[in-house]
Amino acid sequence: MNRVIFIMGVSGSGKSTIGELLAKDLDIPFFDGDYFHSESNVAKMSSGQPLNDKDRKGWLETLNNLAKRQLTKNSCIIACSALKQKYRDKLSRNIVNESKWVYLSGSFEQIFERVNKRSNHFMPSELLKSQFDILENPIEAIQIDISLSLENIIKKIKSNLMNTSEFGLFGLGVMGKSLCRNLVNNGFKISMFNRHVNDLEEDVATNFKAQFMELSNAIAFDNISAFVNSIQQPRRIMLMVNAGKTIDDVIEDLLPHLSENDILIDGGNSNYKKTKERYEYLKTKSIHFIGAGVSGGEEGALKGPSIMPSGDIEIYKKVKLYLETISAKDKNNLPCCTYVGPEGSGHFIKMVHNGIEYVEMQLLAEVATILEALGQNPDEIANTLESWKDEVGSYLLDITTSIFRKKESNEWLVNKILDKAGNKGTGNWTTIASAELGVPSTLVASALFTRYMSFYKKERLQLNKSFKKGNYVELKITPRELFEAYQFARIINHYQGFKLIAEASKSYDWNMNLSEVARIWTAGCIIKSKLMEDLVETFKKTSNLLSNKKIINVINQYKPSTKVVVLQSILNNISTPALSEAIQFFNGITTAYSSANVIQAQRDYFGAHTYQRLGDTSKKNYHTNWK
Amino acid sequence: MNRVIFIMGVSGSGKSTIGELLAKDLDIPFFDGDYFHSESNVAKMSSGQPLNDKDRKGWLETLNNLAKRQLTKNSCIIACSALKQKYRDKLSRNIVNESKWVYLSGSFEQIFERVNKRSNHFMPSELLKSQFDILENPIEAIQIDISLSLENIIKKIKSNLMNTSEFGLFGLGVMGKSLCRNLVNNGFKISMFNRHVNDLEEDVATNFKAQFMELSNAIAFDNISAFVNSIQQPRRIMLMVNAGKTIDDVIEDLLPHLSENDILIDGGNSNYKKTKERYEYLKTKSIHFIGAGVSGGEEGALKGPSIMPSGDIEIYKKVKLYLETISAKDKNNLPCCTYVGPEGSGHFIKMVHNGIEYVEMQLLAEVATILEALGQNPDEIANTLESWKDEVGSYLLDITTSIFRKKESNEWLVNKILDKAGNKGTGNWTTIASAELGVPSTLVASALFTRYMSFYKKERLQLNKSFKKGNYVELKITPRELFEAYQFARIINHYQGFKLIAEASKSYDWNMNLSEVARIWTAGCIIKSKLMEDLVETFKKTSNLLSNKKIINVINQYKPSTKVVVLQSILNNISTPALSEAIQFFNGITTAYSSANVIQAQRDYFGAHTYQRLGDTSKKNYHTNWK
Repeated sequence: MNRVIFIMGVSGSGKSTIGELLAKDLDIPFFDGDYFHSESNVAKMSSGQPLNDKDRKGWLETLNNLAKRQLTKNSCIIACSALKQKYRDKLSRNIVNESKWVYLSGSFEQIFERVNKRSNHFMPSELLKSQFDILENPIEAIQIDISLSLENIIKKIKSNLMNTSEFGLFGLGVMGKSLCRNLVNNGFKISMFNRHVNDLEEDVATNFKAQFMELSNAIAFDNISAFVNSIQQPRRIMLMVNAGKTIDDVIEDLLPHLSENDILIDGGNSNYKKTKERYEYLKTKSIHFIGAGVSGGEEGALKGPSIMPSGDIEIYKKVKLYLETISAKDKNNLPCCTYVGPEGSGHFIKMVHNGIEYVEMQLLAEVATILEALGQNPDEIANTLESWKDEVGSYLLDITTSIFRKKESNEWLVNKILDKAGNKGTGNWTTIASAELGVPSTLVASALFTRYMSFYKKERLQLNKSFKKGNYVELKITPRELFEAYQFARIINHYQGFKLIAEASKSYDWNMNLSEVARIWTAGCIIKSKLMEDLVETFKKTSNLLSNKKIINVINQYKPSTKVVVLQSILNNISTPALSEAIQFFNGITTAYSSANVIQAQRDYFGAHTYQRLGDTSKKNYHTNWK
Repeated sequence: MNRVIFIMGVSGSGKSTIGELLAKDLDIPFFDGDYFHSESNVAKMSSGQPLNDKDRKGWLETLNNLAKRQLTKNSCIIACSALKQKYRDKLSRNIVNESKWVYLSGSFEQIFERVNKRSNHFMPSELLKSQFDILENPIEAIQIDISLSLENIIKKIKSNLMNTSEFGLFGLGVMGKSLCRNLVNNGFKISMFNRHVNDLEEDVATNFKAQFMELSNAIAFDNISAFVNSIQQPRRIMLMVNAGKTIDDVIEDLLPHLSENDILIDGGNSNYKKTKERYEYLKTKSIHFIGAGVSGGEEGALKGPSIMPSGDIEIYKKVKLYLETISAKDKNNLPCCTYVGPEGSGHFIKMVHNGIEYVEMQLLAEVATILEALGQNPDEIANTLESWKDEVGSYLLDITTSIFRKKESNEWLVNKILDKAGNKGTGNWTTIASAELGVPSTLVASALFTRYMSFYKKERLQLNKSFKKGNYVELKITPRELFEAYQFARIINHYQGFKLIAEASKSYDWNMNLSEVARIWTAGCIIKSKLMEDLVETFKKTSNLLSNKKIINVINQYKPSTKVVVLQSILNNISTPALSEAIQFFNGITTAYSSANVIQAQRDYFGAHTYQRLGDTSKKNYHTNWK
C-alpha cells in the first residue's frame, strides 16, 4: 500500500532536512511544501506578513492533489508546517487512511535560535511566535523531539512507520476472537494479543490465527511489548478482558509500553463508575480511554455488534472508523455505533441494555411457564412463540423459539437444564444504579431477584414439599391473551430502561440522545426488536414513551389480557413476577393520588420527618403531634 | 458518691508513694495492698518465687472486701499491682461503677533502675520481668506516665477524677435530645454537646438543659474541647449526627481532643461499609469505635429504644452498662440491646430493620388504599385497623390507626398530605445490599421503588389522564381476607429480612444470632410486633422461618385470601405492589422446578455462558450449539 508521509512542524523545526534524509533512506520522492506556494504568498511572507487561512487554502489543495497523484504511483514524503488540524484535514482529504504524520516538536527558544542562524530562508524569524500561537498539537502523529540526533530521528520515524498494524485487540476470549475476525474481514490490519499462562493459555493468539484463513495478515502475540510495538502510533488498542480487577491489571501491564496519546478502548462490561475512574487515572498518564459497551454476543461480535462508545469526542473520532465499520448496520444502513457521551455513559447504557435484556429473558421464561401449564410441550411452545415472530421481531424471542425446538437423543434439551440462573453483574448494577438514582426500575429488580431465587434450589425443593398446593383450578389463558400480556410488559420494561437512562443523563449531565440509543440497539445486539425500531422515532419527540399515542393505544388494548394472565397465574400458583410487576407498575405510575400520603404520615409520626400538603405550592414542611 | 481509687502498676512503679500523696491531698484513707497479703504469700515472695493465681485469689478478695467496707463510709485509695484484667475484675467485683483506676505506666528499664535502688522492699528486682510478662494494659484507667514529676502526677490524676461525666452525647437533634433525657433519667452523669452555628444553632445544649429539670446535673457545651475534657477517661462519646459526610467531619473535629482508648459510639443510621472503614481508621488512632443502630424514633429514644451495637466485644463491655440501661426491655425484662457482632454488623441489621419497616409501612398503605376503595372513610379505616390490633400487636399498625383518626378543623388530616414519600437511604441500602449479596429481597425493593414512583407526581397526574380507566368492577374483598393477606405478606417480609441477615452473617463471618436480633426488636423499635416475638422462639430452632410448623399453617390458611386480595385489586386497577410481590415471591420460593432453565439456555445461546444439567452431580458445565 502506498503512503504519503507528511512531515509537519513550525518553520525551522527541520522539516526539509529530515524529509530529504528520510526520502533517501526509504528511496521515495520528497516534496518541500514551501516550494508549492503561489507567488503572492511568497511575496507576502517575504514582506514580513503572516499568511491568513485564505492565503493557505489554495496551497493546501495543491499539496493534497500532489499527494493523491503520487499515491497512484508510489509512496512519498511531503514537508508542510500544517499547524492547525483543519490544514491537516485539507492535506489528507480523501486519503486519510493512506496518510501518516510525523510531527517535529521543539520549544520556541530552541527553534528561534535555529532560525536566527539561517540566512537563506525567506521567513523572518520574528514570525515564529505567530506560528507557535496557532499551532495545534496533532494527536494522530508520530511525535519527534528535534533535540535528538538526525540519525536517531530517522531511526525513530522508520521504526514507527514499520509498525504496520492499525488496531490492536487484547484478549482473545469468545468476544475478542469474534471482533478480530470482524476487523480483518473489514480490511483492517490488526495485532492480536492473548496472555501466556502455562498449561492453560498457551499460543492462544498463534493458534487462533492458524485456525482462520482470513487472519493471515493479522499478527499474533503473547508478548505484550512486541504486541504494543507492532501497532502504529497513536495506538488504538481494544481490551476484551473480564471486567473488574482484570481490566485494572491489564492497564498496569500495558502502561509501561504505551506512548503519549495512545488510546485504550474497554469493550468489556465494566462498571460505569469504574470506567470514569480509569478515564481519570489514564488522563494523568496522557493515555486516552474510551469505555465502549459491546452487545451482540459471540455472533454479533463477528457479524456486527452494537457498540456504545463514550469518552472525549475528539478521541472518539480517532477510533470511529474502526468501531463504526465493524458494527452492525441499522435498517438505513447506518452503523449501530455512535458517540454516546462523556466517559462512563457508554458502559452505563450497556448496563441498562443488559438490564432490559434480563427482563426480556425473564418475560419469555414466564411465558414459557404459562404455555407449559397450558399443556404445551416444548415443540408446541416453540410453535406458539414462532407465531409471534412477525409482530414482535425480537432476537430473544427467536432464539427462545430455537431453544424449545432443540432435541438431544430425541429428548427436549431445555428440560434437562438445571434451573439455577447465573448472572455476571450488569443486572445487579442496573438495580443498584436505579436505587442510587431514585428511579423505580422494578422489572430489572424483579428479573434479578428471580435469578437469585433460582439459586436457592435446595430450599425451593424443601419448601415445595412443606406447603399445600390447593385445589387445581383450570388455567384460562388464550395464547393471544398471553401474547398481549407479554407485549404489555415489554413496553413497561422499555419505559423503565429508558427512564433510567434519561434520569442518569440528567444527573450526570451526559446530554444523551435517547433516539440514537434506541437506534444503535435496533441491530447487532441482544435486545433488538420491532419495538426498539419504533422507539427510534418515538424518542425523537418525547423522552417518555408512555406519552406516545401509538403506545397508549397498545397499552389500552392489551391491558385487559394482561390482567387475565396475571390473575389466572396467581389463581394457579404460577410465579410470574415480571408480568405481575408490569401491571403493578403501570397501575402505580398512572395513579393520580397514591397512598404515599400514609407513608409520609407514618414517617412524621415516629421520626418527625415532616410532610408537605396537597395543593400547597409553598412546599412548606409540616409536623403534627399525631396522638 | 463514694469512690474507690485503685492505683495499679508493676512493683516499683510508685503506687505507694503516689497513693499516699493523693490520699493526703483528697483527705481520704489510703491502703497499700501489699500489706494485706497472707503470711504464706509474703514468705513465698521473699524467697524469690512469683505468686501464682491461686496465691492471689484470697488477697484480691480481701482487698475487694476492704473497698466495699470503705465505700459504705467514705471514698478511699487502694494501691495494688492488679496486672491482669481478671485481677482487676475481682478487685472491683460488685463495685464496678464506684471504682476508678489509675495505671502507673513506665518501661522495664525505668522501673528496674528504681527497684534496684530500694533496699527495704521485699520484692527482689529480678522478679520484675515476670510482672511485665503478665501485665495486661487496662483500657478503663487513667494512664499516668511515671516519668512525670510527683506534683504533675497528682495534678493529672485529680484533673481526671474531676472530669465528672461518665458519658458524652454529641449532637442534640431529635434523637440526641431524647437519648440525653433517657440517660439522665437512668441516673447517669452526662455531658451534652451541640455545635454552634451563627443564627442557626446557638446555645442549643444550654437551652435544652434549661428546658428540662431532669437535666440539671447534665453539663451543656458548644465548645468541643471543653466537652471532651469534661468526660472521664476512657471517654464514652455517643455521636447522634447525620449519617454520611457529617460523621466523618465530626470524627475529625473530635480526634485532636481525644485520648488513647477513648470510645466513640455512632448511633446514627450509618452505612455498614462506612462503619467498617471508620472502625479501621480509628484503630490507627488508638480510638475504639462502636457502630450502634438505634431504633424507636423520638419516643423510643426517650423511653427506651432498641439498640444494635457492634465492634470489639471487649470494648462493648465498656459501654454495655449505659446502652443496656437506657434500652427498651423485652417481655422478660431483658434489655433490647445486645452485642450484635463484629464491626459493621450493628449498622447492617439496623439497615435491614429499616428495610423491614419500609415494607411494613407500604403494606399498611396498600391495606388503607383497598379499604378506601371498599368505601371506608378514614375513621372506618382506623376502626378496621384497630380491630386487628390484638392479633397483630404492631407499633406501625397502632400509629397508622391513630393517623387515620387524626382530624384538623374537622377534616381528616391524612387526606391533606401530599403523596410524595421521602426516604433517607436505608431502604435504598437494603436493596443495594441484597443485590450485592445475591439475596432476593423483593419486598424492600418494591417498597423503595413505590416511594420513588410517588415522587413522579407530575408524571402520574399526566399519565392518569392518558389511559383508559376500564369499566368499573365491584371490589369483592372482605376485611378478614384483607387482614389475612396483610399477615401473609408480613411473614414473607420477615422471611426476606432475616434471610438477608443470615446471608450477610455467612458472607462476612459475623456469626450473628437471629433469635437475639428478633428479641431486641420486640420492644423499643418501630417494627416491634407479635410476629417478631414469635420469631425469637422460631429462630432458636431454625434460620428459615418458613420451615416453622406454626408459620406453615398460617401461610396455608391465609394464602387463599391473599390471592383474592391481589387479584381483586388487579381487576380494579389498584396498585398493590408489595401484597402482589409477596404472593409472587412465595410462589417462586416454593417452586421446585423454575423457569431458570430457559434463562440458562438463552445465556448459553447468545453468550456461550454454559449451563449445568438436572441431576448431574458432577456440576459439569455444558455448552450447546443451539441452532
